[in-house]
Amino acid sequence: MEIKPDCLPCVLSQAIKASKIATGDVNIQQLILDETINLIEKYKAYKNPADMGRDMHLIVKKHSKLFDPYIKIKQDNITEALEVYGYLKSFLLQKQNDIVWALKIAATGNYLDSTIYSNLDVKTCIEQELHRDFSICDVEIFSDKLSQAKKILFIGDNAGETVFDRILIESIKDKDITYAVRHEPIINDITMEEAYLTGIDACAKIITTGCNAPGVLFNECSEEFLETYLEADIVLSKGQGNYESLSEDSRDIFFLLKAKCPVIAKAFGKDLNDYIFKYKSKV
Amino acid sequence: MEIKPDCLPCVLSQAIKASKIATGDVNIQQLILDETINLIEKYKAYKNPADMGRDMHLIVKKHSKLFDPYIKIKQDNITEALEVYGYLKSFLLQKQNDIVWALKIAATGNYLDSTIYSNLDVKTCIEQELHRDFSICDVEIFSDKLSQAKKILFIGDNAGETVFDRILIESIKDKDITYAVRHEPIINDITMEEAYLTGIDACAKIITTGCNAPGVLFNECSEEFLETYLEADIVLSKGQGNYESLSEDSRDIFFLLKAKCPVIAKAFGKDLNDYIFKYKSKV
Repeated sequence: MEIKPDCLPCVLSQAIKASKIATGDVNIQQLILDETINLIEKYKAYKNPADMGRDMHLIVKKHSKLFDPYIKIKQDNITEALEVYGYLKSFLLQKQNDIVWALKIAATGNYLDSTIYSNLDVKTCIEQELHRDFSICDVEIFSDKLSQAKKILFIGDNAGETVFDRILIESIKDKDITYAVRHEPIINDITMEEAYLTGIDACAKIITTGCNAPGVLFNECSEEFLETYLEADIVLSKGQGNYESLSEDSRDIFFLLKAKCPVIAKAFGKDLNDYIFKYKSKV
Repeated sequence: MEIKPDCLPCVLSQAIKASKIATGDVNIQQLILDETINLIEKYKAYKNPADMGRDMHLIVKKHSKLFDPYIKIKQDNITEALEVYGYLKSFLLQKQNDIVWALKIAATGNYLDSTIYSNLDVKTCIEQELHRDFSICDVEIFSDKLSQAKKILFIGDNAGETVFDRILIESIKDKDITYAVRHEPIINDITMEEAYLTGIDACAKIITTGCNAPGVLFNECSEEFLETYLEADIVLSKGQGNYESLSEDSRDIFFLLKAKCPVIAKAFGKDLNDYIFKYKSKV
């Protein structure tokens, strides 16, 4: 997905938020702001918003001298997600392990980072979000492909969300499932270290993309990831960053996300905050 | 008020919106975007957000080759405001011409531009807004000064809002009242031409600030404005742009506005969307 004008003030706002998360030192916050403005000036050089977002967060990491400014947020995020794991498992059981509900749980996890930033109660929010219908739901295509698939690749997004993805993956039986995470800490995205905290290793093989972007930049990915990606019968991509970087790839992909920004919502022809499960066919 | 980090993405977002109002040509929109990014890079050179906002809107005017990109919006704004003039007059009469309600009507007018952008029904919105209390209301100081004042200067803001200010001014008897407007079209702010459409000339002498900013930049103001400003017994400044440029001036000023952005709300120690009537004493 190309960078839209509206992505630029958004990246700048994110840099201001990220600088405050990383440091209380206003001089460092200022350095981050100034360097992000320089980065925005070069927006035409970026392939997609995830690519640009990566460089912005590298500015935050460089000036704050923190390898992982979001480590505490990610750990809290996972802890809170694990606290609702039992509730979600029993919720899905009540729904007879229906695949739409399993997908919905995984999609709802994409909302989890918002609850952290706004101090909302996770369980209350999730209960409300679970009952919002998908705005696009290509579940028939998914079920059809799933019945014949051997190898499935999930591409993870935020840290706590992985607990929700675990519930979806646990509901899919007898498949060879790989779960790809970020190669290095970037924003609040899941990395190898945190993936083990979520317990997803019990139901999927964990690999990294080989790339430090909050998305998938193919020319920076590891051979292991590229091989898994190309050989998978199903690729399921979680969240906005993965969509931004994969939307124009030639292979078929299922995108599962909450449209948390107007640009993404518009890309799907839907409204802000809608839940999307969209199949993109081979091109 | 100095420029805060959060003002920068906001100016960029405003430039994107303004470019779409001014032109449907995406190439011109792109030129406006690119030049606004260059402007943001030089943010430390600006005295306040109104100063920077002016230069951003001059970029829009330059590239769109429009002297007044908001002319239609302003005219619609005034027409809609005039349609509720009778309702507001009778509302104030029911409140026995109470000065707090007159101030509240004028403050509510500061919300009018939002209704235009979002296609809301003006009367419904105004009815709701009128019943939201002031979060800060220095009306005792105002009443006290008003009883002794001869000369009063109002500094206007948005075009339609001037109709609401007219109701406040009509409720103040036997004073020498001047209403200052922008010297040239800038955003949807009131200019001399539109001031006459609002009918405010029947109850106040209209002058311009002499300056083309969406606020008051003293080194660019006319002698007439500066003299009126310094000689006034009461200065009442409407809206955010005037506050941004006058908040640190040495003379005493009453600020009447709706805090439509988080930075302004924080400057008053109040919440977003709060109504403010704040007296700043001489310094």
